[in-house]
Amino acid sequence: MERRTITGFSNPLVKFLRSLRDKKHRKREKRFLAEGLRLLTDARECGVLPEMLVMAIGRDPHPLLDALETAVSAAGGDIVEMDVEILAKVTGKDNPQAVAGVFAEFDTRLANLDRASSPIWLVAQALRDPGNLGTMLRTGDAVGAGGLILIDDCADPFSVEAVRASMGAIFTQKLAIARWDEFQEWLRGGDGQLVAASLRDPTDYRQAPYAAPCFLMVGNESQGLPANYEEACDLRVTIPMLGRADSLNAAVAGAVLAYEALAHLKSS
Amino acid sequence: MERRTITGFSNPLVKFLRSLRDKKHRKREKRFLAEGLRLLTDARECGVLPEMLVMAIGRDPHPLLDALETAVSAAGGDIVEMDVEILAKVTGKDNPQAVAGVFAEFDTRLANLDRASSPIWLVAQALRDPGNLGTMLRTGDAVGAGGLILIDDCADPFSVEAVRASMGAIFTQKLAIARWDEFQEWLRGGDGQLVAASLRDPTDYRQAPYAAPCFLMVGNESQGLPANYEEACDLRVTIPMLGRADSLNAAVAGAVLAYEALAHLKSS
Repeated sequence: MERRTITGFSNPLVKFLRSLRDKKHRKREKRFLAEGLRLLTDARECGVLPEMLVMAIGRDPHPLLDALETAVSAAGGDIVEMDVEILAKVTGKDNPQAVAGVFAEFDTRLANLDRASSPIWLVAQALRDPGNLGTMLRTGDAVGAGGLILIDDCADPFSVEAVRASMGAIFTQKLAIARWDEFQEWLRGGDGQLVAASLRDPTDYRQAPYAAPCFLMVGNESQGLPANYEEACDLRVTIPMLGRADSLNAAVAGAVLAYEALAHLKSS
Repeated sequence: MERRTITGFSNPLVKFLRSLRDKKHRKREKRFLAEGLRLLTDARECGVLPEMLVMAIGRDPHPLLDALETAVSAAGGDIVEMDVEILAKVTGKDNPQAVAGVFAEFDTRLANLDRASSPIWLVAQALRDPGNLGTMLRTGDAVGAGGLILIDDCADPFSVEAVRASMGAIFTQKLAIARWDEFQEWLRGGDGQLVAASLRDPTDYRQAPYAAPCFLMVGNESQGLPANYEEACDLRVTIPMLGRADSLNAAVAGAVLAYEALAHLKSS
């Protein structure tokens, strides 16, 4: 454990922290950044502590901040204080949240998931918007999903935007990242119903025979799911579209499906 | 109708178009910007044409673009062509969509709404994120809602971000902007059930007695609804939250409620 005070923009640690806003650097460092007292407190309450806690000099005192500092110190983590202007550079915000943390990225292998641990899992294919990705994590937490599986080329779940939109669910939901063929092989190696919203010979989503563990899949924001992915599903459901548009926002579609499946699986 | 070609960044029209990215200028001009062939085609198919159509010089030809140009010309609108670099300045994107349109803002008075025209209406209070706002418009279109009513200080529905996230629903959904007391007075001047997700003495959202016209209200992203707003509702419903988080993304909550209400109102 180290305690440092940083007052210069040119400090290498500032450069390191700023670099974590960039995916390439996150992947190299295997670290990500989460900002704000609420998010860091969520993490702590889930038993996840940052390796490094970064706070503004001259911040207002707060018991939750004290609790964080104590926990990070006790776990051997680093405590760093810096001028609020430098923290603003790190967080990329004019009004920086008074605290940020550096976390080790989680293991995102499929083999890590225990499919029997939850009746519902969310799956996103080529989801490009980090806000949508974070929102899906948040929805997953709310419906008691086991986690989110990211197929093909999705936004980075460890981006600041995705972490923020997850409202802490990045610390409660399991995450896996896989190619479609890897996911198929893993899925078919055990129980699991793969479900997607689709117009190919679908069942009304209110009447569909959802079965746990139920893997609810949504596709890319502009392309939707590839045809062969839809065909590989065990169940294709249709959500009413009464207006001009032919699709919902991806995170919304996932949530509508997830809450419907939850109601069915709870009562079955 | 005018046809102009612009090749200089300093042209006053370029300045005017760029100014429409800013709320203050939009309000003064009572105009807004929508970008992209798909969005403008949606508008045209809804019978809404831009006053001015702005296209890149050297764009790829497209029958839908021809149809737009013909329709705007026939309606007496302006056609403007400009260098792609200048259009990029206007749209604020490195890869500008090849076309943008300037639209007159819609009338957003409550008095404009015909509550009997739809069984479902969405209401957002102090919704600050333009993406959430646009997503609610998109969901409204999908569930056959009449429109979206914005209460208190919401994001601007005519911002480029909200228009984009609406995926064209800005042109199909009615929009009203009102203060809470104005909305209350209007709502209570006729039939209408006001519904919100709430923890105050709520009914399970799957079992609730939704009644048309049903006004489904969601609150601010971080604060939720004020207590007195919840108390003024005819029906308070609860959506299961099985995880650590105590709320859903606002646009997600609105969609889960809207699809539930739709299912009840269709079958009643």
